[in-house]
Amino acid sequence: MRLRELGEKLGREIRGNGEVTLSGVDSLESAGPGDLSFVRSLAWAKKLSATRACAVVVPSVVETGELPALVSPNPGLDFARAVALLLPPENPAPGIHPSAFVSSSAAVDASASVGPLCSVGEGARIGPRSVLHAGVHLYPGVRVGADCRLHAGSVLCEGTELGDRVALQPGVVLGGDGFGYAFDEQGRLEKVPQVGRVVVEDDVEIGAGTTVDRATLGETRIRAGAKIDNLVMIAHNCDVGENAVIIAQAGLGGSTTVGRHAILMAQSGAAGHLVVGERAFVAARAGLHKDVSPGAHVYGAPAMEERRWHRVVAAMGRLPQALRRLRAVEKKLGIGTPPGEGEER
Amino acid sequence: MRLRELGEKLGREIRGNGEVTLSGVDSLESAGPGDLSFVRSLAWAKKLSATRACAVVVPSVVETGELPALVSPNPGLDFARAVALLLPPENPAPGIHPSAFVSSSAAVDASASVGPLCSVGEGARIGPRSVLHAGVHLYPGVRVGADCRLHAGSVLCEGTELGDRVALQPGVVLGGDGFGYAFDEQGRLEKVPQVGRVVVEDDVEIGAGTTVDRATLGETRIRAGAKIDNLVMIAHNCDVGENAVIIAQAGLGGSTTVGRHAILMAQSGAAGHLVVGERAFVAARAGLHKDVSPGAHVYGAPAMEERRWHRVVAAMGRLPQALRRLRAVEKKLGIGTPPGEGEER
Amino acid sequence: MRLRELGEKLGREIRGNGEVTLSGVDSLESAGPGDLSFVRSLAWAKKLSATRACAVVVPSVVETGELPALVSPNPGLDFARAVALLLPPENPAPGIHPSAFVSSSAAVDASASVGPLCSVGEGARIGPRSVLHAGVHLYPGVRVGADCRLHAGSVLCEGTELGDRVALQPGVVLGGDGFGYAFDEQGRLEKVPQVGRVVVEDDVEIGAGTTVDRATLGETRIRAGAKIDNLVMIAHNCDVGENAVIIAQAGLGGSTTVGRHAILMAQSGAAGHLVVGERAFVAARAGLHKDVSPGAHVYGAPAMEERRWHRVVAAMGRLPQALRRLRAVEKKLGIGTPPGEGEER
Repeated sequence: MRLRELGEKLGREIRGNGEVTLSGVDSLESAGPGDLSFVRSLAWAKKLSATRACAVVVPSVVETGELPALVSPNPGLDFARAVALLLPPENPAPGIHPSAFVSSSAAVDASASVGPLCSVGEGARIGPRSVLHAGVHLYPGVRVGADCRLHAGSVLCEGTELGDRVALQPGVVLGGDGFGYAFDEQGRLEKVPQVGRVVVEDDVEIGAGTTVDRATLGETRIRAGAKIDNLVMIAHNCDVGENAVIIAQAGLGGSTTVGRHAILMAQSGAAGHLVVGERAFVAARAGLHKDVSPGAHVYGAPAMEERRWHRVVAAMGRLPQALRRLRAVEKKLGIGTPPGEGEER
Repeated sequence: MRLRELGEKLGREIRGNGEVTLSGVDSLESAGPGDLSFVRSLAWAKKLSATRACAVVVPSVVETGELPALVSPNPGLDFARAVALLLPPENPAPGIHPSAFVSSSAAVDASASVGPLCSVGEGARIGPRSVLHAGVHLYPGVRVGADCRLHAGSVLCEGTELGDRVALQPGVVLGGDGFGYAFDEQGRLEKVPQVGRVVVEDDVEIGAGTTVDRATLGETRIRAGAKIDNLVMIAHNCDVGENAVIIAQAGLGGSTTVGRHAILMAQSGAAGHLVVGERAFVAARAGLHKDVSPGAHVYGAPAMEERRWHRVVAAMGRLPQALRRLRAVEKKLGIGTPPGEGEER
Repeated sequence: MRLRELGEKLGREIRGNGEVTLSGVDSLESAGPGDLSFVRSLAWAKKLSATRACAVVVPSVVETGELPALVSPNPGLDFARAVALLLPPENPAPGIHPSAFVSSSAAVDASASVGPLCSVGEGARIGPRSVLHAGVHLYPGVRVGADCRLHAGSVLCEGTELGDRVALQPGVVLGGDGFGYAFDEQGRLEKVPQVGRVVVEDDVEIGAGTTVDRATLGETRIRAGAKIDNLVMIAHNCDVGENAVIIAQAGLGGSTTVGRHAILMAQSGAAGHLVVGERAFVAARAGLHKDVSPGAHVYGAPAMEERRWHRVVAAMGRLPQALRRLRAVEKKLGIGTPPGEGEER
């Protein structure tokens, strides 16, 4: 594709030679001849002189000299779109691989692809153009919408439902049993049957090794556009809002609700039955044990409001010295060493 | 099933019309005609008037008016048992799926079910009525007891042994190598062969994506009735006690022992070679670096006893103000600003 | 193997009867007749009298009386090597299992083993003596070097490259998409195509359920000799240095670099775009939000230098009492109770 054509597809202006041919993409440092690259801001622009890329996506304020450029108000976004156009994912051919097992009562669209060594259970349905890579297992009654991409080794248990354009990275598990037990008369844990299911709406993406448990009753629901990273744990009966973001190794306890556009950063955790408000921000490693207000930014464990957390962390760093200062004050006042306290270290 | 029959099976008294037919289960809010629901306590009882359920399980103190009811001293437990009776899990038919590979030296009970695309290694044994869902892999010498349920994609390495009624959710890994290395003469890490195995006793349940490593020598053992949630890491040579509970994303270092009925909450962690006593409670996100006494409740990282932790957390919140108060005291005493300290913010 | 032969192979001196035959290995407590065991130091030596092992590996300072012994300056290392000699892993026979699917354009060395129900995509290459256990899936263009061991259920996405002697425990995912999104004009998250790949160099070992994401552009690289434990998350474009160690459930944000011989302990986390210096030590549960200097030891979240962290933790424990002491000082000076503060508890 020529740079000029790319500009037309993205609706952006071209500077310099639009006839240069683009064959790949890479970072400014690694790009070779034929590669398109990009500059997010003036701060990166100094690397431009050394790049071997044949064209770059830049914001209008960045000078590019001889180097052909596509001018964008959002270079990161337009570069991403350029990559999608220049290097479209290679879809496996439609059809069911001979090594796959598809139940006779399942319905697989003719344009869908079921890869090697997949299994598709009774009554399952797979929509147009959806792709199951190798070794994906669908239990009975699973529904997969259109244009989904299920990577190798993913497992979808009974009744799981995916909307359209859902992407599951390898090893995702949807619909495992929730962790539900009741104490019996002898004080032992007796399993509470988990008879609900998992519903994943349109345009959701879920990272490698993440697990979403089925509801005890009813649904665990991941709403449209939510993006979930790797090794995240979402327990039974959670409700993750539209366009919410949950980063790697975070965990949600049972029946927790995450509002639209909320963000939970890596390794954070929420106890069960909480509500994280719309557009709330939960910092990395924060631990929630109560609700988070819409728009609030919380940090730490136990989590607290951002400014307060910064003050507490700063004060903690000054604490060893403060104890020495307190001792000096006590001495000046003739107050003896308190019991259990030696000299301050 | 009629409500009257359910009462007989559970040994509970029925109030109102016992002839109503139960076809499903759901929460009070979501239940439709034909559904059984339940009320745990008086606090939930106000939702009773709006439910469309045809019958409910209730404690005796809750009035139900016209609505047929099963009266229980433990409504959560009896509802769980009712669900198990009304919606028994659909077991796949016994037999070995034609797409599975079973070694000729393996012994699969005739009443067991080996699902599509499973592999069963040399000398492995699978007991009566156990079910392997699709894509389960048993290495040579694995033993699976009776009435086990191994969900899709689980992997059991050489010599792993399961008792009876063990449930593995999808993607569980039992018997991967423990993390053991010794420094060689050049200071590089040389692998310590991991030649032990994993033993899982009766009635254990293990959540999706959890990994239990084989022992370096001897056994990593999960004792009868323990319940382990998703994405938990149990390292080599651990010993998890009877009826212990380990919640999602918690981790145990090597050779750590967890006592009977102990509870480790989500995202907690224990260093290696520790002993967590019987009936101890380790709070969510707690980090253990020393033993926990039987019955102790510990919080925080580094973990401390519950009351002490509450006091420390409360004091931390008051710390920024305390620093201002300390500065005021110093001023009153004519003590100058200490080096490195500006005015308190 | 006789003890004498073992001593010759390891280049170590034998004490006592070198003709004893070794048939297994176990700990001092569990060993039976025919087992070799070991003693790391004098502290363990008191268990020697009770062992039923037929021989032990010991440091020279330990007396062994009648018990035959192999004398070693590093008993742990020599015992590990003895285990590898006495109990070599049983490799599956070379060849492609009839239930596996191997693309016609893939190249599998004749000495390699492809287990049951594996899939090998177009153009993939598998080197001499490498073993794929059951249910491993290689996407197109994957390269596996010599003497690798890929355990069941591992998934390697397009273009992933493994050096020689790489070991993957069950359920490892290499090359899933990195978590990259750009906000579109409507404020929704649009996927940034992830077109880079994962490169794993020689002698790397990766634990069960660990995920390493492909680079957005270029490479995510795990350098020679690095050892990574279970359920670790390594995000796109990370660079893990030679012989680095990352323990269970730790996580690295995108584009983070870990230096040679650095150690990240369990459940620690690093934000993206950080540099962890060579031979740095990051304690269990530490949370990094800035670079770590080479050789530094950091603890806590937010992470701080080890000595400082010990002082802060000790001071935190004394904080509740310090607040009482501060109040006493204020009273003596006639300063009233500050607003919002009651009596100290």
